[in-house]
Amino acid sequence: MKLRVDLLPHGNYSDTVLVVDILRATTTAVAYLERGASALLLTSSPEVALALRDTVNDAGEVTRNERYLLGGERGGLPIPGFDFGNSPVEAASQNFTGREVVMNTTNGTAAAHIAAQSGKHVLLASLVNAHAAARRARALAVEEIAIVCSGTDARVSLEDVYAAGVLAEYLLAMGEFTVDDGARIALTIRRNLGNPLEALSSSSHGVTLERLGLGEDVRWAARISESTVVPTLNQTTQERPEALRFVAG
Amino acid sequence: MKLRVDLLPHGNYSDTVLVVDILRATTTAVAYLERGASALLLTSSPEVALALRDTVNDAGEVTRNERYLLGGERGGLPIPGFDFGNSPVEAASQNFTGREVVMNTTNGTAAAHIAAQSGKHVLLASLVNAHAAARRARALAVEEIAIVCSGTDARVSLEDVYAAGVLAEYLLAMGEFTVDDGARIALTIRRNLGNPLEALSSSSHGVTLERLGLGEDVRWAARISESTVVPTLNQTTQERPEALRFVAG
Repeated sequence: MKLRVDLLPHGNYSDTVLVVDILRATTTAVAYLERGASALLLTSSPEVALALRDTVNDAGEVTRNERYLLGGERGGLPIPGFDFGNSPVEAASQNFTGREVVMNTTNGTAAAHIAAQSGKHVLLASLVNAHAAARRARALAVEEIAIVCSGTDARVSLEDVYAAGVLAEYLLAMGEFTVDDGARIALTIRRNLGNPLEALSSSSHGVTLERLGLGEDVRWAARISESTVVPTLNQTTQERPEALRFVAG
Repeated sequence: MKLRVDLLPHGNYSDTVLVVDILRATTTAVAYLERGASALLLTSSPEVALALRDTVNDAGEVTRNERYLLGGERGGLPIPGFDFGNSPVEAASQNFTGREVVMNTTNGTAAAHIAAQSGKHVLLASLVNAHAAARRARALAVEEIAIVCSGTDARVSLEDVYAAGVLAEYLLAMGEFTVDDGARIALTIRRNLGNPLEALSSSSHGVTLERLGLGEDVRWAARISESTVVPTLNQTTQERPEALRFVAG
C-alpha cells in the first residue's frame, strides 16, 4: 500500500483521500455531524450555498428552505447571509438534528472538490477524529491512501502538515506502507514540533485566529482522536458537482 | 527582515529570491559557471533553447551559433538536440570558457521564471553554494528573502526542502528574521534528516536518479558550500522574457 502526503492539493487521486484543513473546516465538519447534522454539503462557492437555501420569486421575496443552515468563512470571518461562521466551538454549542449544513470556506472546501474529482473514497480528517479517519481509510483503500493538506491561499500550512503526520503515524501502526517525500516531511514535523496545541498555536494561521479572537477554536482543534465521526463523501447521492454531500461514517 | 520559504513556487515575490532545485538544475548551474561559462540562459521551453542556437534557412540548412551550448533534461534524461544533460558531474568535467549555456529543465527553470516575474533580485541556490548564496541574499534584501523550492512536477521534493533548511540556518545566523510556516518546516527537516547525502539519497528524486545511473550527480549535489559562485539574474540585460540571463555573482 502506498502512503502519499500532498502538502498542497495536487489532484490525480486514484483511491482513498483524507482531506485535511484542521483550522478550521475539517474540524468544524466533525462538530456539525457530532451535533446531529444529517449531512454536510460542501459547495464550490458562497453563491452556490445561498442558492441552495434561498429561493427568490419575481417580486424579490426570499423563501428560505429550513432544511439548510449555512456555515463558512472568508479570511477567517463569517460570510454575509450565512447562519454560522466556520467555528467548531460555535458548532459544538448548537443542535443540528434533522438539518443539513451547507459549508463554504477559503481552503478546505476547495481541497475537497479537488479530491472528489478523481478519488474513489473521500474523507474529511482532523486531529479530533484522526484515529477513526485513519482506520476508515485503511479499511477502504486498495492501493493508495493520499493525505491532502489544504494549505492557506496556495501556501503550505504548518498545522495541516502536523495533522498529516499524526494521521500517517496511525496508518504506519496499522500496516505496511511505502511512503513518499511528503509523508516523510509530515512525520518529521509531527515528531519534532511538540504537542498539538504548541504546533497549532504557533502556526501562522493559528496566530491569525488568536488575533481575530478565535483562539478557543484553535484549542478545540488541537484535541486528538476525541471523535469517531468521519465525514464521508456519499458518491452515490451527488446531486450536483458544485455541492459535495458528506455524511457521518 | 522576513524569511519566507515556499515549498512549491507560488509567485508574488517582492524582494530577494533564492531558487532551489538541487537535483539538479541549480547545482548544475553553479558547475557551468565554475567551469568558465560567461552566462546561463534559462529558457521557458526546449524550443526556445534550440532557436537561440540554431538558425534554419529556407533550404532547411541549420547554422549553429557557436556561442551557445544547450543543457537540459526531461524526466532526468537529456533532451534531443541538446549538447548536455543536466548533470553537474558532466558539467564539472568540461571547459565552458567564453560560451553561454542555455538551460531548460523540468522544474528548476520554471521556478526561476516564476521568481523573475516579480522578484527584485533572483539568485540560484544549491547546497554546493549555500553559504555564498545566503550571504549574497542577505546583502541584497531590504525587507524579505524568499527561498523557493522547485519541487518535482508540482509536488514537494524532500531534497529541496532540506536545502531550504540549510539556507535558512545560514540566514538565521546572519541576523534577525521573522519566519513563516514554510521556513519552520524546512528548518525542522534540515535538523532531523541526517547529513546531506542521507537526505538526498533517500529522497524520491534521488532514488530515481540512482536508478537512471546518475548517482554520482546526487553525491556531487550533496556537498555543502564548496563554491562561492552565485548565479545571479542580470535584470538589466534581459533580451527577452523567455530566456533569463544569469551571470556569476
